[in-house]
Amino acid sequence: MTQTESAYSEMVERVRQGRLLAACMGLLSWDERTYMPRAGGPLRGEQMALLAKLYHERLADPRLGELLDQLADAPLGELEQACVREVRRVHHRAVKIPKRLVEELARTTTLAQGVWVEARAKSDYSLFLPHLQTIVRLKREEAQAVGYDQSPYDALLDEYEPGATVAQLQPIFTALADALVPLIAAIANSTVRPDRSIIERDYPVDRQRFFAESAAAALGFRFDAGRLDVSVHPFCSGLGPGDCRLTTRYHPRRFNDGFFGMLHEVGHGLYEQNLDPQHFGTPLGEAVSLGIHESQSRLWENQVGRSEPFWRHFFPRARQAFPEALAEVGHEAFYLAINEVTPSFIRVEADEATYNLHIILRFELEQALLADQLQPADLPLAWNERFQQLLGLSPPDDARGCLQDIHWSSGGLGYFPTYTLGNLYAAQFMAQARRDLPGLDEAFARGDFAPLRQWLTQSIHRHGSRYRPDELCRRVTGQPLDSSIFVTYLRDKLAPLYRL
Amino acid sequence: MTQTESAYSEMVERVRQGRLLAACMGLLSWDERTYMPRAGGPLRGEQMALLAKLYHERLADPRLGELLDQLADAPLGELEQACVREVRRVHHRAVKIPKRLVEELARTTTLAQGVWVEARAKSDYSLFLPHLQTIVRLKREEAQAVGYDQSPYDALLDEYEPGATVAQLQPIFTALADALVPLIAAIANSTVRPDRSIIERDYPVDRQRFFAESAAAALGFRFDAGRLDVSVHPFCSGLGPGDCRLTTRYHPRRFNDGFFGMLHEVGHGLYEQNLDPQHFGTPLGEAVSLGIHESQSRLWENQVGRSEPFWRHFFPRARQAFPEALAEVGHEAFYLAINEVTPSFIRVEADEATYNLHIILRFELEQALLADQLQPADLPLAWNERFQQLLGLSPPDDARGCLQDIHWSSGGLGYFPTYTLGNLYAAQFMAQARRDLPGLDEAFARGDFAPLRQWLTQSIHRHGSRYRPDELCRRVTGQPLDSSIFVTYLRDKLAPLYRL
Repeated sequence: MTQTESAYSEMVERVRQGRLLAACMGLLSWDERTYMPRAGGPLRGEQMALLAKLYHERLADPRLGELLDQLADAPLGELEQACVREVRRVHHRAVKIPKRLVEELARTTTLAQGVWVEARAKSDYSLFLPHLQTIVRLKREEAQAVGYDQSPYDALLDEYEPGATVAQLQPIFTALADALVPLIAAIANSTVRPDRSIIERDYPVDRQRFFAESAAAALGFRFDAGRLDVSVHPFCSGLGPGDCRLTTRYHPRRFNDGFFGMLHEVGHGLYEQNLDPQHFGTPLGEAVSLGIHESQSRLWENQVGRSEPFWRHFFPRARQAFPEALAEVGHEAFYLAINEVTPSFIRVEADEATYNLHIILRFELEQALLADQLQPADLPLAWNERFQQLLGLSPPDDARGCLQDIHWSSGGLGYFPTYTLGNLYAAQFMAQARRDLPGLDEAFARGDFAPLRQWLTQSIHRHGSRYRPDELCRRVTGQPLDSSIFVTYLRDKLAPLYRL
Repeated sequence: MTQTESAYSEMVERVRQGRLLAACMGLLSWDERTYMPRAGGPLRGEQMALLAKLYHERLADPRLGELLDQLADAPLGELEQACVREVRRVHHRAVKIPKRLVEELARTTTLAQGVWVEARAKSDYSLFLPHLQTIVRLKREEAQAVGYDQSPYDALLDEYEPGATVAQLQPIFTALADALVPLIAAIANSTVRPDRSIIERDYPVDRQRFFAESAAAALGFRFDAGRLDVSVHPFCSGLGPGDCRLTTRYHPRRFNDGFFGMLHEVGHGLYEQNLDPQHFGTPLGEAVSLGIHESQSRLWENQVGRSEPFWRHFFPRARQAFPEALAEVGHEAFYLAINEVTPSFIRVEADEATYNLHIILRFELEQALLADQLQPADLPLAWNERFQQLLGLSPPDDARGCLQDIHWSSGGLGYFPTYTLGNLYAAQFMAQARRDLPGLDEAFARGDFAPLRQWLTQSIHRHGSRYRPDELCRRVTGQPLDSSIFVTYLRDKLAPLYRL
C-alpha cells in the first residue's frame, strides 16, 4: 500500500466511525420523536450530548487534519479527490469554530427553543427578542470564524448548501419573486375557485395510513429497508444502508396533511435508499446538500404528486379508500382542490407557488440581521411590511408572522434558502427527466414510477457528494440553476387550471 | 474538595459516561428487536460494535484503574465504598480479559449463533458441536484470565451474579432437586387434571394487548416512563430514568404467552423504574444481579400472577375481555389451568415447579464441560440421561434437548443458575413481604398492588448494587438463601390444588 493509499484508507476509516455515531444519533432522535416515553426526555438529552461530543471530537481530530494535509496534493482519482474535498470542508468547519462558541450556541439555542415555543403560543415577540439578539450575535461570530469571500451569510449557507453564495442566489431569487408576484395576483383574480371542502372531510385515519403506505410502496420506497411512522412534524431519517425512516401525520378531516406529508418524505427517503451503499460512511455515500435533498422531496410531492397523470392512477384508488368523502367528487374537482394557490400566513401550509415568497422574505431578513442592517427589535415591522409587498397580506399577529418558524431559535440561519433551491432544482430536474424519458405521464397514469425513480437514482442519488450541488445541476440538466424553469412549470400547470 | 472527593467524583463521571453509552446500546438493541426494518441488520451490527468498543474502552481505561487505586484505602462513606467495590469488580474483569480473547469470543459467538439457529431448526447437533468446542475452550480461558478461588465456574458466575460460587449454590440446588422430584411425581399421579383447553382458545390479539396493558398499569408500571411492545422473545430494557421498555408476544389462541410474558417483564420493569434516579450512572443506581432481577420478574409472574387472590380481581375482567373463551369458565377451573404442573421438554415453556429441574441440569452440565469432565461431543447423551432422571422424560431429538437454548451459542455459560436463583429469591422475598404486610391477599383481590410494590421498592429496588445479592437477601429476609422456602410455597399451593 502506498503512503497515499494508507492515508486515504485511514481517513475513510475515521470518517466512517463518525458516520456510525451520527447514525446512532439518528436513531435516538427518530425514537425521541416517535416512540420514546414522555419522561425519557432528560436521559435522551444526556445520551445525545455525549454522542454529539464524541462525533465532534472525530470531525475536529487533529489526526484527520494531518491526513487531509498529506492527501492535499497526493495523486488521487476523481472520486477520492471529491471525498477528500468534502471531508476537508466539514473538518475545517469543525476546527475553525471555537469550542467555546459551539457550547455557547448549544446552550443559547436549547434555551431559546423553549422560549420560542412559549412566545409563539402567546404571540409575544418581546419574550423571544433577547434570545434572537444573542443568536444573531453568535451566528455573526460563527461566520467570522468560518470565514468567507464576499458575504458573511455565505459562511452560514455553506453548512447547508456547500458552495452556495448570496452572489449566486440573489439574482435567482429576485427573478423568481418578480415572476411569482404577478402570477399569484392573476390567480387571485381568477373566477375559478377550488372547492377546498373536498379535501377537508372525513378521512378515517386508519384508512389514510393504509392508503399512504400503499402509495409509498408503489412509488418505490422499500419497506424491507425502511418504515413510515407518525410524528407531530413529518421527517425523514436516513440512518444508513437498509434503514431509512419516514414519518407523516394524519388528521381525521384533512387529506393533504398525511398524504402529501408522506409524498414529501418519500422523496427524501428514495434519495437516502438509493445512495451507493458501497460508499456508506464517506461523503460519496451521502446526500450532497439540503437543497438537492429538498429537490427530491419536492419533486415527488409537487412535480409528481400534484400532477394530473399521478391522480389518473391514484384517484380511483382514493375513492375506494374514502368513499364517504370522495364518492360524489370528480377527478377534476379533486385535482383543482389539491392545487389551490392562495396567499396565506404560514409557510408550512403554503402552496407550491406562494411558498417561495415566504422563503425569499426570510432570505432577505436573515441577511439584513447578519449584516447589522436590521435590528432584531425591528424584525416584526420589517417582516410585516415585506410580507404585504410579497403576498398582499398583513399578518394579524407575530405568531402568524415572524414567530412562526423554529429555525431561528435553533440557530438555523442560512437554512431557509435550501427550501426554495429544492423547488427550483426539482423543476429543472423534472424538465430534464421529461426530455430524457418520453412517455413519463403515461407511466404515471399506469402507476409506473420506476423509470423516473431509476433516472433520479442514476442522475443524482448514486453520486452522493461527488459533485457540488451547482456542478451536479449542470451535469444533469446541462445548465446552471435557472428559476425560469420553475416559473414555466407553474404557469403551464396553473394557467389552464385557473383559466388565466 | 479533598483529593478523595475529587477522585471519587471523577470516577463517577467516567462510569456515568459508560452507562450513557450502554443506554444508547440499549435503545439500538430494543429497536433491533421491535421496529428496525429487516435490511437494517448489517448497519446495526456496525453501530453496536462501535459503541461496544467505546464502552469497553471506558471500563478498561487505565485512568479508571488509577482512581480506583487512589480510592482503595480512602476514607469513604458506606455508599461510596459500595460504589467503588462494584466499579472495581467490573473494571478488573474488563482489564483482566485480554482484548484478543474478547474479540475471539465476539467473532466465535456471532458465527455460532447463526449456526445454532440452523442446527436447532434441523435438530442436527453435529453442526453446532465444533462451535461449542471452541466456545467452551474460550470460556475456560476467560475463567483463567479472570481468576477464581475454588472453581473456574465461579469466574463465569460472577459476571451475572456477583459473589456467587459453586460452593454456595451446589447444596442449595441439590436440596431443591431432592424436594422437587418427588413433588412433581406426586402431581403426575394426581387424579386432578387441569383443562388446558381453557387457555388455548380464541383470544383476539387486540383485546389481549388492551388487557395486558391495563393490567401492567394496574400493577404500577408507569407508561409515561415506559412502553410495552411486541417482540419474538419478550424482554425488558431499562435504559435509565424515565425510559424502561418491555415487550411480550401475543398468540391468537394462547392466553399465557402474552399475559404471563407481560407479567414477567413488568416485574423486571418495576425494578428498573424504581431504581434511585439520583444514582443513575453508577452501580448504586443499577440492579445488583441477574438473580435478583429475575426474582422480581418471577415474583410478579408466579408468586403474584399465579395466585388465587390475583385472579379474584382479574378473572371477572378477563371474562369481560374474552367472553368467547371464558364466558362458561369458572374461576377455579381457570386458576387450575394456569397452574398446570407437568414435565415437558422445553425450558421456556416449563411451569414454575419443573422449571428449576431444567436449570439444575444445565448448571451441572456447564460445570462438567468447563472442568473438562464432559466432552462437548458427549453432551447430547449426558443431557438426555440426566433429563430422564430429573424429569422422567427422554427428549425425542436434540432440538428438544441440548440445542433448545441460545445461551451457549452466545457464550453465556454461567447464566442459567440466575433463573433458579430468581425463583428462590422470589419465594423468600414474598414470604417476608407477607410477614411484613398483613392483608396482602385481600389487597390483591381488591386490585391494590401498591403495598407490595412499595415494599419491594424500599427493600430491594432503591438499594441498587449497594449490597451484594446474598447480603441483600439476609438484610431483607433475615437469613441466607434457603430453597426450602420456595419448596414450602410450592407445596402449600399445589397440594390442595392437586389434592395431594
